[in-house]
Amino acid sequence: MRILSGMRPTGYLHLGHLCVLENWLELQKEHECFFFVADWHALTTEYENPRSIKEYTYAMVADWLAVGLDPEKSVIFVQSQVPAHAELHLIFSMFTPLSWLERVPTYKDQVRKLKALGKDITTYGFLGYPLLQAADILIYLAEGVPVGEDQLPHIELCREIARRFNYLYAPIFPEPQGILAEVKLVPGIDGQKMSKSYRNVIPLTASTEELAELVNRMVTDPARIHKHDPGHPEVCTVFQYHRIYQPERAKDIETACRRGEIGCVACKKDLAAVLDRRLAPIREKRAEILARPDYLREVLEEGKEKARAVANATLARVREALNL
Amino acid sequence: MRILSGMRPTGYLHLGHLCVLENWLELQKEHECFFFVADWHALTTEYENPRSIKEYTYAMVADWLAVGLDPEKSVIFVQSQVPAHAELHLIFSMFTPLSWLERVPTYKDQVRKLKALGKDITTYGFLGYPLLQAADILIYLAEGVPVGEDQLPHIELCREIARRFNYLYAPIFPEPQGILAEVKLVPGIDGQKMSKSYRNVIPLTASTEELAELVNRMVTDPARIHKHDPGHPEVCTVFQYHRIYQPERAKDIETACRRGEIGCVACKKDLAAVLDRRLAPIREKRAEILARPDYLREVLEEGKEKARAVANATLARVREALNL
Ligand code: SF4
Ligand code: SF4
Repeated sequence: MRILSGMRPTGYLHLGHLCVLENWLELQKEHECFFFVADWHALTTEYENPRSIKEYTYAMVADWLAVGLDPEKSVIFVQSQVPAHAELHLIFSMFTPLSWLERVPTYKDQVRKLKALGKDITTYGFLGYPLLQAADILIYLAEGVPVGEDQLPHIELCREIARRFNYLYAPIFPEPQGILAEVKLVPGIDGQKMSKSYRNVIPLTASTEELAELVNRMVTDPARIHKHDPGHPEVCTVFQYHRIYQPERAKDIETACRRGEIGCVACKKDLAAVLDRRLAPIREKRAEILARPDYLREVLEEGKEKARAVANATLARVREALNL
Repeated sequence: MRILSGMRPTGYLHLGHLCVLENWLELQKEHECFFFVADWHALTTEYENPRSIKEYTYAMVADWLAVGLDPEKSVIFVQSQVPAHAELHLIFSMFTPLSWLERVPTYKDQVRKLKALGKDITTYGFLGYPLLQAADILIYLAEGVPVGEDQLPHIELCREIARRFNYLYAPIFPEPQGILAEVKLVPGIDGQKMSKSYRNVIPLTASTEELAELVNRMVTDPARIHKHDPGHPEVCTVFQYHRIYQPERAKDIETACRRGEIGCVACKKDLAAVLDRRLAPIREKRAEILARPDYLREVLEEGKEKARAVANATLARVREALNL
């Protein structure tokens, strides 16, 4: 199966992204994968200050490779380096009813959310976001797209667009499937959703010391004052991390906490060590990658060529079908 | 001044277009002109049946050259052969408020008009039509755009987009001016607006015989039954044509008609001859052009190269300004 997935370069990656990337690693083992940096998509929210997109792009690809994405196996590229996406998006726009885009549930949600943060994204481009996604996917004739539950309507729209194109012109596109991954939701250190805008993230680049410091700041059971007070792991963010990052020991920690047999300081030290063991090999590989300044550029250059070849071939068929 | 203008290849050209083309000829004398076949724009209304767009494109360019557009002086090209338009349009979309597009007066008008003809164009692409136009214009850094009065809001939008880009990123774009041309409105042979959908057009390719036949079918003063009845030229389509195509003789014809000194048959013969004299040199030049099958392709190939060079240079500056 051919798989496509992307990430927006709007910040540095954090632990939440690691879960997504681990899912990509699984897919890479068995499928032909296209992974791309969605820099045009980043503009929908960052249009007022796009200058850091390039920096985030390189940092992101370094992280991807450090985690184990393999440019020999997968096509790794930057969206804006394949202009065919923009052209297919334009062609799709001509037969896509406005109402299809207006009814995508994430649209009004996101507009409202960002308005609360003082950002106005009621732009033409943001309304067309799922249409550009459809072009991203279909230009590679991808059949599978790993998504979160909230993105399923986007895949459904993509399928509708594929069907409409195939019906109107020629049967060129597959109807891609959303692949619902078992991605665990890692909370931020304050217990809320992990997000750059909440300043509660654990960066993927965190050093041993930074990890200790961040775990130290995590919210625990507020009712626990003395080391031997019985704790309530169900309200403790540290415990949620234990469950995700060392599920095999979670039961023991829970029991110890409830019985007041383990102090929060020790429990946090334990977690920091677990996270450090998880991030150490990534940290090491990233350092190797960044020590070869041309390597990243070469990877993206090669990815660009491979992506363009496939995308341009699809576009040629599309143009022929429309007799352009 | 650098000028840009385009036409949608949605049918064969008729006398109404000739007035526009004569305006282009004037502009070509004094300015650096870019004239393009707007085939992506044609998709907004023709998306259900785009297969004739290519045929209309070649016929249109043959007419342009036959009328006197000169590929040595002007850049003549097809929009979809310059993908940079699509990319700039996508970038513009990211910072263009939806409301700017929704308030363009032609939008709701056109949607209503086409609905009456059984065509639904409430698509994402049709809403974005003026934005694609802005990209068409600005990618060549054009400063002047010949337009009809109804298109002035599109130019205003284009200026707003240029201003917003210049403000947000870097001062790359001029603020183009609309050039209101003195284009005469040629009525159809039934006296209504000349339009393919009303089946009342005089094609630019009409032969001598076809001209005679079409003029013959023109609506005259319905109150005039006998040759010597006094006529009412103000209600006669034939007379409107005389005023446009031989204004120097219109006064005499009017007097003769009112006095019953000229019959409608003779009056129409007169007009058919005038139109034939006007179209004969175009007809001849078109025949020459079509006799050299490679010539059109060469003109468009060369136009494509020239247009791409300018468009890609602008796009490179845009990408740099956004740090993409
Ligand atoms: S001991 Fe661990 S699980 Fe229990 S409250 Fe403290 S940090 Fe949380
Ligand atoms: S004589 Fe000429 S102008 Fe008068 S009604 Fe007949 S066609 Fe019209």
